[in-house]
Order: sequence, then C-alpha cells, then structure tokens
Amino acid sequence: MPLPTIDDIHQAAARIKPYVHHTPVLTCASLNHMANAQLFFKCENFQKAGAFKFRGACNTVFSLSDTEAKRGVATHSSGNHGAALALAARLRNIPAHIVMPHNAPQVKRDAIAGYGAHVTWCEPSQADREATVKRVVDETGAVFAHPSNDALVIAGQGTAALELLDDVPELDMVLTPIGGGGLTSGIALAVATCSPRTRMVAVEPAGADDAYRSLQSGTLQPSINPRTIADGLRTSLGDLTFPMIQQYAEQIVTVSEAAIIHAMRHVWERMKIVIEPSSAVPVAAVLDKRIEVSGLRVGIVLSGGNVDLASLPF
Amino acid sequence: MPLPTIDDIHQAAARIKPYVHHTPVLTCASLNHMANAQLFFKCENFQKAGAFKFRGACNTVFSLSDTEAKRGVATHSSGNHGAALALAARLRNIPAHIVMPHNAPQVKRDAIAGYGAHVTWCEPSQADREATVKRVVDETGAVFAHPSNDALVIAGQGTAALELLDDVPELDMVLTPIGGGGLTSGIALAVATCSPRTRMVAVEPAGADDAYRSLQSGTLQPSINPRTIADGLRTSLGDLTFPMIQQYAEQIVTVSEAAIIHAMRHVWERMKIVIEPSSAVPVAAVLDKRIEVSGLRVGIVLSGGNVDLASLPF
Repeated sequence: MPLPTIDDIHQAAARIKPYVHHTPVLTCASLNHMANAQLFFKCENFQKAGAFKFRGACNTVFSLSDTEAKRGVATHSSGNHGAALALAARLRNIPAHIVMPHNAPQVKRDAIAGYGAHVTWCEPSQADREATVKRVVDETGAVFAHPSNDALVIAGQGTAALELLDDVPELDMVLTPIGGGGLTSGIALAVATCSPRTRMVAVEPAGADDAYRSLQSGTLQPSINPRTIADGLRTSLGDLTFPMIQQYAEQIVTVSEAAIIHAMRHVWERMKIVIEPSSAVPVAAVLDKRIEVSGLRVGIVLSGGNVDLASLPF
Repeated sequence: MPLPTIDDIHQAAARIKPYVHHTPVLTCASLNHMANAQLFFKCENFQKAGAFKFRGACNTVFSLSDTEAKRGVATHSSGNHGAALALAARLRNIPAHIVMPHNAPQVKRDAIAGYGAHVTWCEPSQADREATVKRVVDETGAVFAHPSNDALVIAGQGTAALELLDDVPELDMVLTPIGGGGLTSGIALAVATCSPRTRMVAVEPAGADDAYRSLQSGTLQPSINPRTIADGLRTSLGDLTFPMIQQYAEQIVTVSEAAIIHAMRHVWERMKIVIEPSSAVPVAAVLDKRIEVSGLRVGIVLSGGNVDLASLPF
C-alpha cells in the first residue's frame, strides 16, 4: 500500500467534513504559566465518539464503494477506533464488526454496543487481535479497517492538523501521543507540508516505548507486553506509520506513568475538561520537562476523552 | 440596599470585561436526544477561578474606592466565592480575608491559598460563618463582600446572561442552580429585561430547598441543616435575592441527590467537561423530567467546575 500524501489529507478533510466536529482549541493560563510557554490544546476529546479516531474511521467508511460498503467493516481496537468505526458505519447504515480485548474499559465497551456494532472478544495481545479479526473478516466478507496502519486512516487523522494550523498560526512545535502511529503520521505529514518551520514531536509512555526503540534502532520494534495506563497507546507502529514517523517526526520522547497521571489530573482540575490517559501523555512531556518548550508556541493534540469514571487513577 | 437594575448589570459587564472570560456555550447531541430539546450549556466551569462567582467578585472589587480597596475585602464562602474574591483582590493587589467552613472541599481550600488570601476557618453553619466574618471585618477594616445577597454581586452574576442571550438567540427557557440566589437573581433580571419571552426556572436540591419553600410560603425560609452533595447550594436566599426571585423566576424545581449525581456523570461522560455537583442540578431537572422541556431551546448555566477529584460520587 502506498504511503498517504498531503493530497490524501485534503481529500479526507473534504470527505469527512459533513460528519466530524471541527474541534475547538483551548488555552489555559495556569498551564501556560507552569510550562513557561503558550500551549494550544486541540480538543479531540470533544470529537464525535470521544476521540480523534472518528476522523480516520469516517474517511475509511465513506471511501468504500457501495458494493464494499454493503458487506460492512471490521476492525480490532482497544476501544476508541472501534467506537469510531461503529459510529461511522451507523452513519452510512452498514454493519460494523468490532474485535475488542476483554480488558478494554467499560465505557468503551458501552459506547460500541450503543452504536449497534457486532462485538467479538479476544485476548489483549496483538497476535490474538489480528487472528480474531481475520476470522471475522473471513466469515462476514467485511472490509478490514486497521486502527492505525492504513493510508485512509492516517489521512483522516491528519485532518486534525489542518484545523489546528488554520486556527493557530505560527506554531513552533506540535506534540501528539503515539501508539500505533496513525495520528502522529497524519499530523506529522500535514505539519511538515503546511508549516515546515513547526517541529513535530511524538510522546510515548515509557512502558510502551516501541516507537522510541524503533526510531533509535532504525527497525520496527514491536511492543511486547506493554504496561501503561494509557490504554490507547499499547499498540505498535506498522509498516506504513513507521517510515512516515522516521521521515516527519523530529524525535520521540517518553514519559513515566506518574507523570501521565499527574498531567491528566492537572488538565481535569485546571482546564475543567475530561481527557483520557493517552491524551495526558504529551502534556506530561511538557509538565515533567521531558522536552524543552520554554518561550515556544506549542500545539498539543488531546487525543480523546473516553475514561471509565468508575476506575480513575486518582 | 436598593435592588440592582439592568443598568447595574450593563455597568458590571463593562467594568469586569478586562478580567473575566466570555465563556463558551457548548451543545451535546446525545444530551439533546435524551431531553428531546435543544440544550445550550453556558460553561461557567471555564470561568476564571472555576466558577461564575468570579463575575460578582470582580464587580465588587473593582467598584471599591481606592481608600476602601486599601483595607481589602472579606467574605465567608463554601469555596467558589472565596476563591473568586481572592483572585479578584489579587488582580487589584489588595488583601482578601476569606472565612471558610472547615468541611469545604480540598480543591477549593487549595485554590484560595494559591491566590494568596488570608483564610479563617469556621463551623459549617450560616450563623458561625456570619459571626466569624464579622469578627474578621472588625479586626481588619476590610469591606465585607457577601457571596450572594449583594447588589454588586447580583449585577456581576447577571453578566453571564447578557453573554448567553447574545450568543444564543430565541431561548425558550433558562435554567440555573439556586443556592444563595445571587446567580439566579442576576440572570433572571437580565432575562426578564432583555428577552421577556424566555421563561426563567431555578433548580434546587431537594435536600436544600429553602428557595422552593420560600416561594411557596411567600416568606423567607432559611435553610436548616441542608443535606446535598451540591456544596455550592447549601446557603439560603437573602433579603435582596428573595424578592428578585419572587418577581422574575417562574418557578423553583427540586431534584434528588441521585438525579444530581446521575446528571453530573452524564455531563462528564458525554460532554467531556468537568462540572461540580451544583452545575449538575439544572441538568438533573431536565434528565429526570422534573420540568417539561420537550421541543424547547433551553439555556442551562453550568455554574462551576471545582471538584475534589479525590472524593467523587462515582
């Protein structure tokens, strides 16, 4: 599969515009003060289905031919991509088959069920996720939609950067969380093309640092038994997202679990918005001084807000 | 003290404009669906110091003569008014003396300390709050700023309605939570004057229903040992707010504790914003069908977002 281009992102933006929210960019005086920087938070936690994943899912679903669409779509997902695909499929009135690890947060299970998708449970390993979804695709004829390593998905996620760059001029840096790399690839491509002076940095939990190790070693390093509260970032880079991140991201920064929880709490308390742990990962890099942002204008993508309120880390 | 007028609200808006946020109005498709109405949430949880109280506090502090201001301001508060007055005082660089009940949430204690105010603890009763603040005023010469029963405070709170009515035309109804009545009085006066067709309804926890009983009986009924999670609504109406609410509010609706917690959770999960229990009170009236809103355009004032994350009700 060829790598997506900036034209693919512009086409995705036009295709998904009727369905997605143009999410707001928020600022927070007290977080700016702590960071000694101007932080611009792109609030994909306010996106439909509660996360940026809805962009890529919509681009996938609304790119299908009528014949393909009739058989439906299938994916494996720790939750947000599954919910996003389920909602996008419902908007096109086609079936969605979602394979989920049985340890996914309750709020994500409920969301997917609420969107009327067919759910199949699997073990929380990359291998069993892939095997299970293959079986579902074989049985149903549905089109497989990868959560991240897919050109349409990457192009869809990149549309968030078009909005951010339009709404906030002259950014010195953009920070994203990185898991499977779909968000980072799309954002990085858009930033490199539309605002070449803006530095692109991805942030990863130290307990799920496959992207960091992959960039260090120059070869794709799978995530083995990742341990992080950031449940959206336990997946690994793929053969599309890895080369894009090699090409367009300046560096990968890792953060501790304590820093993630601290950052998440700070955003809740000071900004009065609900973000999930994955969203707190780039905020943690700033607050824990894992990256130097002093005096800079920094865009931070808050990737989602789907949290199980019954099991908060504070 | 004379009752405030709409001119006082317009003057307050001009006076506090350099200091307050013009807060956003958010909507939520899933809450609209549940209510079968169009709900417009005025997000005072995003106001500085985390609640609408900052409007009234700013109007008070920036109305003082230089001579008055030098002696500082004093108040008693379950938290939000205290934090708001402390921040407003800091912006004018004058002392703030805050009397707080010792059972106020930790997050509100921290905020007030963070703004550099002098804190005096008291028992969580109206009588001890008033006695303690009187002592502080006698000792310091500070100007007393009542949390709600004060013309400048009421006028300041009313500015939120000017913004809401500007941003959302043709509202059929506006809902506010009601505690001491400062917010409701100011909002109700502004709504009655600027949008006479809009119905004004205040919502109160059943466990702190002094406003409901006062309107029913036609005489001021104090709140005795109020029991509600909505810590901002445990105070009673006063001799300014009561007649204004009699004149301008259509009715008072009460809601159960279970409905408040349910509504609060729903807003967190669906809207991805942090609101405190007091903010959930008018939402509870809609979701628990304590007021008929079917087919209406309804403005709901989310009064604040200061929650102790260490002691959530879910």
